[in-house]
Amino acid sequence: MNQQLTIPKGTRDFNPEQVLKREFIFQTLKNVFTKYGFVPIETPVMEMLSTLLGKYGDEGDKLLFKILNSGDFTQNISNDEWNEKNLQKLSMKLCEKGLRYDLTVPFARYVVMHRNEIVFPFKRYQIQPVWRADRPQKGRYREFYQCDVDIIGTDSLNGEVELLHIIQDVFQSLNLGYITFINNRKILQGLAEQCEIENHFVKFTTIIDKLDKIGKDEVYAELLQLPIQAKHLENLKVFLNQFLELTTNDDRILLAKSYIQSNTGKIGINEIETILQKSNQIGLNSIKFDILLARGLNYYTGTILEVKSTEVEIGSICGGGRYDNLTGIFGLPNVSGVGMSFGADRIYDIMDTLHRFPENLTHPIHVFVANFIPEIEYKVLHIASLLRTNQINVDFFYDPHIKLKKQLSIANQKNILWVLIIGEEEIQKEQYLLKNMKTGEQYLLSLQEVIEKIKLS
Amino acid sequence: MNQQLTIPKGTRDFNPEQVLKREFIFQTLKNVFTKYGFVPIETPVMEMLSTLLGKYGDEGDKLLFKILNSGDFTQNISNDEWNEKNLQKLSMKLCEKGLRYDLTVPFARYVVMHRNEIVFPFKRYQIQPVWRADRPQKGRYREFYQCDVDIIGTDSLNGEVELLHIIQDVFQSLNLGYITFINNRKILQGLAEQCEIENHFVKFTTIIDKLDKIGKDEVYAELLQLPIQAKHLENLKVFLNQFLELTTNDDRILLAKSYIQSNTGKIGINEIETILQKSNQIGLNSIKFDILLARGLNYYTGTILEVKSTEVEIGSICGGGRYDNLTGIFGLPNVSGVGMSFGADRIYDIMDTLHRFPENLTHPIHVFVANFIPEIEYKVLHIASLLRTNQINVDFFYDPHIKLKKQLSIANQKNILWVLIIGEEEIQKEQYLLKNMKTGEQYLLSLQEVIEKIKLS
Repeated sequence: MNQQLTIPKGTRDFNPEQVLKREFIFQTLKNVFTKYGFVPIETPVMEMLSTLLGKYGDEGDKLLFKILNSGDFTQNISNDEWNEKNLQKLSMKLCEKGLRYDLTVPFARYVVMHRNEIVFPFKRYQIQPVWRADRPQKGRYREFYQCDVDIIGTDSLNGEVELLHIIQDVFQSLNLGYITFINNRKILQGLAEQCEIENHFVKFTTIIDKLDKIGKDEVYAELLQLPIQAKHLENLKVFLNQFLELTTNDDRILLAKSYIQSNTGKIGINEIETILQKSNQIGLNSIKFDILLARGLNYYTGTILEVKSTEVEIGSICGGGRYDNLTGIFGLPNVSGVGMSFGADRIYDIMDTLHRFPENLTHPIHVFVANFIPEIEYKVLHIASLLRTNQINVDFFYDPHIKLKKQLSIANQKNILWVLIIGEEEIQKEQYLLKNMKTGEQYLLSLQEVIEKIKLS
Repeated sequence: MNQQLTIPKGTRDFNPEQVLKREFIFQTLKNVFTKYGFVPIETPVMEMLSTLLGKYGDEGDKLLFKILNSGDFTQNISNDEWNEKNLQKLSMKLCEKGLRYDLTVPFARYVVMHRNEIVFPFKRYQIQPVWRADRPQKGRYREFYQCDVDIIGTDSLNGEVELLHIIQDVFQSLNLGYITFINNRKILQGLAEQCEIENHFVKFTTIIDKLDKIGKDEVYAELLQLPIQAKHLENLKVFLNQFLELTTNDDRILLAKSYIQSNTGKIGINEIETILQKSNQIGLNSIKFDILLARGLNYYTGTILEVKSTEVEIGSICGGGRYDNLTGIFGLPNVSGVGMSFGADRIYDIMDTLHRFPENLTHPIHVFVANFIPEIEYKVLHIASLLRTNQINVDFFYDPHIKLKKQLSIANQKNILWVLIIGEEEIQKEQYLLKNMKTGEQYLLSLQEVIEKIKLS
């Protein structure tokens, strides 16, 4: 049986070091979110398929993990349906539940179901895993965490400003270089209107969205797939080339204002301008107006944003935007919200690569108490208990028949900095031998001194 | 669509108050576990069905949530198999993954898969949800958390003593009354041998295990289902009646020693005696030797234990025991371990019933900063930022066009203790109005005084 022992493709075990590093990221996010007035919710891992299906496009529907109904899972399937073997129809009869695909749809479902107990504007964060039956590849998993923060029930642009503030606070707390790109779907809408291709808006944004991957010239080439008039395309190219050469947000806004004539587009530019002004006033930086930022998800209706590391090339590490009708799909229309999601796995990879995790983080056990004389074991255990009472994390060795040398080697393999060695003489004199496993230094100390020495390290 | 909006049976949404209370329990457990030298691991929500099946008995197998294979889930099923509609066979072809049922089997799988990187004895904790397709009922869910702590790779009874110490530390930290019942499967084995029904050991323990629910007389009656000789049953009854009348562990051990002749049974009694002696030496209390404690799970081979609340009748809130061959099922034999699992949901219910959660816990947002004069909004936001820099959690109101009265009402509904009110005069004088929403008291304070006042509350 051993030879086949494995875990599902695209999932991971986390060892103690990894768990502690991941929790450091989650805890940093929670602290910042709370500082800005957000409170946590949690939703079940499983949602009804009726809640999930149709929210992520056809491709998304295929990537949902579905859960086989309990009991007789064939009972609602007629013989004809059974024999037809239509996969999609069958899967809907075999399964009524699925694993959540993101935290946004469960959040919308939560808001609608709990709308009578929620005080709006509702500021919530949610840090939980999600599942996608994607083809696993490096840095891409089938089980991964999302860390979402949303404000729902207000269309104030102060929501956007607060999110930008949170981004700055999070990445400063994590000691990571970053840059936030910001745009507005209304500006993209304006560009499309100006080129008379507003009926092909989704396709238009999909092409624009590829700029990062395929470059400017390829994007222009792909735009030829759209029924865009040559004069419009030429104007657009001239505008975009000019735009990309400008470095300040002020210049970019001025240029966009002069080019974009559509009303929707103008509203979008005004929104960006307001957000950037307010952000300036409170000293936010590292924000860049990027007119080619598109974001894949179609529920965004206003501001969109994306954060990238300036230190490691790894794609976006946070993204989000404003959605004016997310809860509409569940029967609660006209509730505007804005939110974003931090990619904990990528942030982890960056911090690990750059060695930015605090050093003590992965060494939570402060001292290893050796136990090698059966007769005084209970006295040694008593001292271990006293250390614990003083909030020191102690690994007490269980087996007094194992030689001290072997115990020291175990402490070393467990990466525990201090070893406390207590023999009969030490007990009598109430002076204990504390050994630093890194430097090899040894100290003969009273219990109080042991506690202080360990706490200071 | 709204009318059907629901979540899967037996699962729950958690609102902010509930999440914060649950995290308090988890954090308390983590702190205690770490104090005793344990480190965390995490495993995927999904495991291969080959890992899970056959580990929980037939009943358990039926309660596994299975995940429909991605893509063409019918591809490995022959037409004959398809037409046969054998549910069990079909489910194994339709699904290769399932949601984990507990944390013990994934832990065993983890230990075997990672045995070359683990330093034994390995002391790990794991706090994650599990899923069972049980019939949902009050206090029983299909998705719930387990909080497991195990020591693997040593048969030292100091493991048991440490677990008892952890139990005491946890329930003292949570300020909950408790009692720990302890027994040993070898003693039960001894009883069975003495009654010459050792071949019916599982049935024997299942009947014994019901004592709590059905009472002593019913247990004796059910024992008649076994091929037990009348003289043995009479002896057993006399012994058990005497045992249950004794109140001290010492008396119970003496009696057990005089009654039980089987070698296995004697070993079990000696183990209990050693554990209780050591526990006494380090001042542990609230431990009771209960010869009728059986625990359902068959992988236990030595000590078994169960903790109950002395304040609320709710069943066991922690349970565990020693297993000598858990990893054997995955090809790594002869690795002894001992561990236990805290029932976070029941502990939550008890603490909620008794109002034992710290009061500030569910009010993480310290102050609501009102924002009702558009012209000075950025100055107000600046002050909110300064508060945040001082580690104060601030809900800044976004819309300056909403009347102050309405904003105060929102702060009230959000249960935020303090509201900071900043008008033009306040800005000029650098004196701000801080209002206590509970008492109605108001203070005119400098920013530094505001910070101090909030931090002291």
